[in-house]
Amino acid sequence: MSPIPVVRMAELEIAPETLESYRALLIEEIEAAVALEEGVLSLSAVSIRDNPNRIRILEVYATQEAYEVHLRTPHFFKYKSGTADMVTSLRLIDVDPIIMRAKS
Amino acid sequence: MSPIPVVRMAELEIAPETLESYRALLIEEIEAAVALEEGVLSLSAVSIRDNPNRIRILEVYATQEAYEVHLRTPHFFKYKSGTADMVTSLRLIDVDPIIMRAKS
Repeated sequence: MSPIPVVRMAELEIAPETLESYRALLIEEIEAAVALEEGVLSLSAVSIRDNPNRIRILEVYATQEAYEVHLRTPHFFKYKSGTADMVTSLRLIDVDPIIMRAKS
Repeated sequence: MSPIPVVRMAELEIAPETLESYRALLIEEIEAAVALEEGVLSLSAVSIRDNPNRIRILEVYATQEAYEVHLRTPHFFKYKSGTADMVTSLRLIDVDPIIMRAKS
């Protein structure tokens, strides 16, 4: 059995005039994290259709340590500092996985 | 380029006394859907830590047609009819993918 992954959910609201820049930084960060970090299992970002400034991100890490390593990477730092003035609201929701299945 | 997947998010609230049965039916349904349906790319279900009766599901289908096929499968019907009396609230949120990356 694999250990239970660490799952986090984030709900963000982005200042509309910065949305395009925000999305570019988010895409760059997610691509780097999944490509470069062994413990980042998946990162999924979606926007709410009725209000595209509202973003949700589902984050899956292999372990708590992998999550903490992620927070110290250069790509996360670039995203976090680069988007600090764009994010008008950030809510982190602690969640527990029930079941996560994907095509291999 | 692959076509853009169809992504849906569901927020559910489950009657507490039925939670164990609900989770068993959900797990069975998700395992069957990802194993048996070509167009079901991933299904991720989590519970909110502060209130485990609140469930969120992120659903990723290859196409709109794949989503519609899914709604007509025996395993979805079993889940939907079996849990109808357990779900006290269901909110389906239309979302658009920004970026979705997973370890292959």
